Amino acid sequence: MRCDVLAVGTELLLGQIIDSNSAWIGGELAAHGIDSLVQVKVGDNVGRMTTQLQRLLTDADAVIVCGGLGPTHDDLTREAIATVMGVALVEDLALVDVISSMFAARGRTMAANNRRQALVPVGATVIPQTRGTAPGLICPVVVDGAAKVVYAVPGVPHEMKEMVERAILSDLRRRSGTDAVIASRVLRTWGASESGLNERLDGLIAELDEPGVPTLAFLASGWNGLKIRLTAKAATIDECRAQLDTWEARVRDEIDDIVFGTDDETMESVVLDLCRQAGLTLAVAESVTGGLVGARLTDIAGSSDVFRGAVVSYATDVKRELLGVVASQVVSEEAAREMARGVRDRLGADVGLALTGVAGPAGQDGQPAGTLFVGMVGPGFDDVRHVRLPGQREQMRQFSVITALDLLRRHLLAG
Amino acid sequence: MRCDVLAVGTELLLGQIIDSNSAWIGGELAAHGIDSLVQVKVGDNVGRMTTQLQRLLTDADAVIVCGGLGPTHDDLTREAIATVMGVALVEDLALVDVISSMFAARGRTMAANNRRQALVPVGATVIPQTRGTAPGLICPVVVDGAAKVVYAVPGVPHEMKEMVERAILSDLRRRSGTDAVIASRVLRTWGASESGLNERLDGLIAELDEPGVPTLAFLASGWNGLKIRLTAKAATIDECRAQLDTWEARVRDEIDDIVFGTDDETMESVVLDLCRQAGLTLAVAESVTGGLVGARLTDIAGSSDVFRGAVVSYATDVKRELLGVVASQVVSEEAAREMARGVRDRLGADVGLALTGVAGPAGQDGQPAGTLFVGMVGPGFDDVRHVRLPGQREQMRQFSVITALDLLRRHLLAG
Repeated sequence: MRCDVLAVGTELLLGQIIDSNSAWIGGELAAHGIDSLVQVKVGDNVGRMTTQLQRLLTDADAVIVCGGLGPTHDDLTREAIATVMGVALVEDLALVDVISSMFAARGRTMAANNRRQALVPVGATVIPQTRGTAPGLICPVVVDGAAKVVYAVPGVPHEMKEMVERAILSDLRRRSGTDAVIASRVLRTWGASESGLNERLDGLIAELDEPGVPTLAFLASGWNGLKIRLTAKAATIDECRAQLDTWEARVRDEIDDIVFGTDDETMESVVLDLCRQAGLTLAVAESVTGGLVGARLTDIAGSSDVFRGAVVSYATDVKRELLGVVASQVVSEEAAREMARGVRDRLGADVGLALTGVAGPAGQDGQPAGTLFVGMVGPGFDDVRHVRLPGQREQMRQFSVITALDLLRRHLLAG
Repeated sequence: MRCDVLAVGTELLLGQIIDSNSAWIGGELAAHGIDSLVQVKVGDNVGRMTTQLQRLLTDADAVIVCGGLGPTHDDLTREAIATVMGVALVEDLALVDVISSMFAARGRTMAANNRRQALVPVGATVIPQTRGTAPGLICPVVVDGAAKVVYAVPGVPHEMKEMVERAILSDLRRRSGTDAVIASRVLRTWGASESGLNERLDGLIAELDEPGVPTLAFLASGWNGLKIRLTAKAATIDECRAQLDTWEARVRDEIDDIVFGTDDETMESVVLDLCRQAGLTLAVAESVTGGLVGARLTDIAGSSDVFRGAVVSYATDVKRELLGVVASQVVSEEAAREMARGVRDRLGADVGLALTGVAGPAGQDGQPAGTLFVGMVGPGFDDVRHVRLPGQREQMRQFSVITALDLLRRHLLAG
C-alpha cells in the first residue's frame, strides 16, 4: 500500500510557512506499514493542484491532500478533487447546519463564504470536523481501472493530525489488507565521517537488500551526531523488534566504540544521565563556545540536579581572575586544564569541563581556526585533549560542543 | 522563469527530518522574481528520483535538486541527473584532488567512498564546494527541444544556502534574460504579533497592489524577530533602492517603535554595536537561558571587544556565592537586579544584563512557566522588567534571549 501526500498552499512555496504536515504524515504512515514515496507542495491554483494530484495517483494507491479546505476564494482543494473524480460539488445541508452551529456556539454568525466548506464531491464521504470548521473528505477515484482513494484534511496541524489519527490511518490499513508493521531504531554515533561509517559497515550493507533484513540509512545531524537508522518491516511489532535487536547487535559489533546513544538520546542527555547515576555534579568553563554547552545541557528539563552552572570566560582576564588561569597562552593545553579545575572549584562541582579554542575566521595564539582544547577533571580523571575541527565559525562551535561532551562521556564511562 | 525544487532523502518522507531547504529556496527565488510552483520530496531511490525530476522538467524551466550528493551508497542524485541528461558519469580528477586535500587539511585521509563525490555528468559544470566535501552541479538538459537546467546542491542547509546564493541565483537571472532588477529590504521588529503588525500597517497594505510599489511580506523568525520584507522590482537597482527608501520610511512612520534593525542586522549585532559605539563592555548573568545569550553574542565574530563573558548561575547557591544574590526568591525582580549588578562587578564590565525565569514545564518560586525577569544595570540605568512569554520550554528560552537583549537595547539607545 502506497499513500503519497499533496500539501497545498502558496505560502509553503514562498517559504513563509515550512510544511511540517507531510513529514508528520509520512512518519505516521511508516509506523502503520504504509509507504509514502513522494510528497509534493503546490500553490493555491486549481489547475496545478489537479495536475499534481493526477500525477501522484498514477503511482500511489492513495493520496492525502493537506490544506485548501478553508472558506476563502483561494481554498480550492474541493474543486481540484471533484475535477479528478469527474463529478460535481454539491452543498451538504447537514454540514451547513453543523458549521453554522459551530459559529453560534461561539456567539457568532456564520459568514456566507463558510458555506463553501459544506461543498462535497458527489460520491465522497465526509470526515466530521471536531476542531475547526473544515470537514475532511474520503473520495474514491478510479485510475486506469484501479480503485484508489483521495483524502482531504485541513492544513492546520492539530486539525490535520486529529483527522488522520481518527479516520484515515484505519481506513488505509483496512484498504491495504496488510498487517505489515514498520519500526525503526536509531543508533547515534560521533567520531566517524559518513563515508568512514559506510566503509566500516560495508560488509553489513551488502546484506541489506535481502528479505527480512532492515534497511539502513545514515543521517548526518550536525551537533546531534551522525545517526544510523535501522528500519524493519514485518507482520508483527515483535518481529520488527527482533530484527532490530539482531541488527543493532551486528552494527554495534562493528562500530560500538562510536555509538553514544539510541533513538531520542542526545549527547547532552547521555552525559547528564551518567553524572546522575554516579551522583556527580557538573560545571563548565566555556570560551570558544560562548555558552553553547550550558545552553544545550539546560535545554533538557531536570538538568538542574546535575548541572550547577558555567563560566563563559570570553575575555582573557576573566579566565585569569575568575578561573585562575595562569598559562601564558589562553588557547592551549595548560589553559584548558586550568579552566576545568578552576570552574570545578569555583562552582563547587564534582566534574569540571572546559573548552578553549579558535572559532575563526582569524587564528589566535598561533593556533588556526578549528583548534579546540578540551579540559576534563573529575573523580579518577584529569585530562586534556587537542582536537582539530572543520567548518565555518558556527559549525566549528557546534562540533566543539558535541566533541567536548563526548570526550567527557568516555571518562565518565571509564570511571 | 520557473524553477521548481526536488528535495531528496528518505528521512524527509519518514518525518525524521523536516524539509526546510525547499521553503528557503522558494523564498529566495521569489525575492529574485523567479516562480517556484511545485516542490517535491522523494526518497533515496534512483528510479523515483529520475521520474520526479523528469516530471518537474516538463513544466519548469529549471529544477534545483537538494541532497543526495554525499559519499555513501544511498546518495544517488548524480546518477539520477546523468540518466535524465542521457549522459555518463565521469570522475573529475581535479575534484578528487580538491576533496582529498580537504581531508588532508584536517589531518585525515580521504575514504575511498568520497571519490563518488568527484563524479560529474558529461557536459555539467561544477559549483566548487567551499564548506563540505560535496561540490554542486549545473547540468544543461534538453526537454522536448527546449533548453533547461538542473542544479544539484548538498542537503546540508548551510552548504546549500551558500551555493544557491553564490552560484545559482545569478545563473537563473542570467538565463531568465529579464532586465528587471529585484531588490529587497528587511525591517526587523520585536514586540508585536503578526496580526498586530498587519493591523498597524492596514493603510499601507491596501496600496501594495499598485504598480511601482514594493511587495510586503511578514516572516515570523523566532528569536530573530518578526521580519517585514519589502521587495521592489524596477529597471535599475537605483529605482529599486528609491522605492525601498520611500516605503521603508512609510513603514517606519507607522511602527518605528518596534523596528530594531534592517537586513542582516540581528538583535545581538545591534546591541554589540551600541555598546561598541559607547565604549561599553558587557557581562551577562544567565539562569533560565543557561548560556544562550552568551552563545548568541559570541556567534558574531569580533564580539570579544565588547562581551567580557557570562556566569551561568543555574544552581541557586552559585547565584549567591558567585553573584552575591541575597533575595530569598531566585526567580524575582530582586534576584534579577542583584544578578545584573553582581555579574557586572564580578566580570569588571560597564554593563550587566541578567535573566532569571521559569522555562517549565513546572513552575518555580510560585511563578508559572513563561515568567521572565530581566535585570539591566549600566551608565545611567538600573532597571528590572517582568515579562510573560508564551510557548514551550525551547521557545520560551529563545524568546527570553531576544526580549532581554531588546530591553537592554532600549536603555542603551536612551543613554
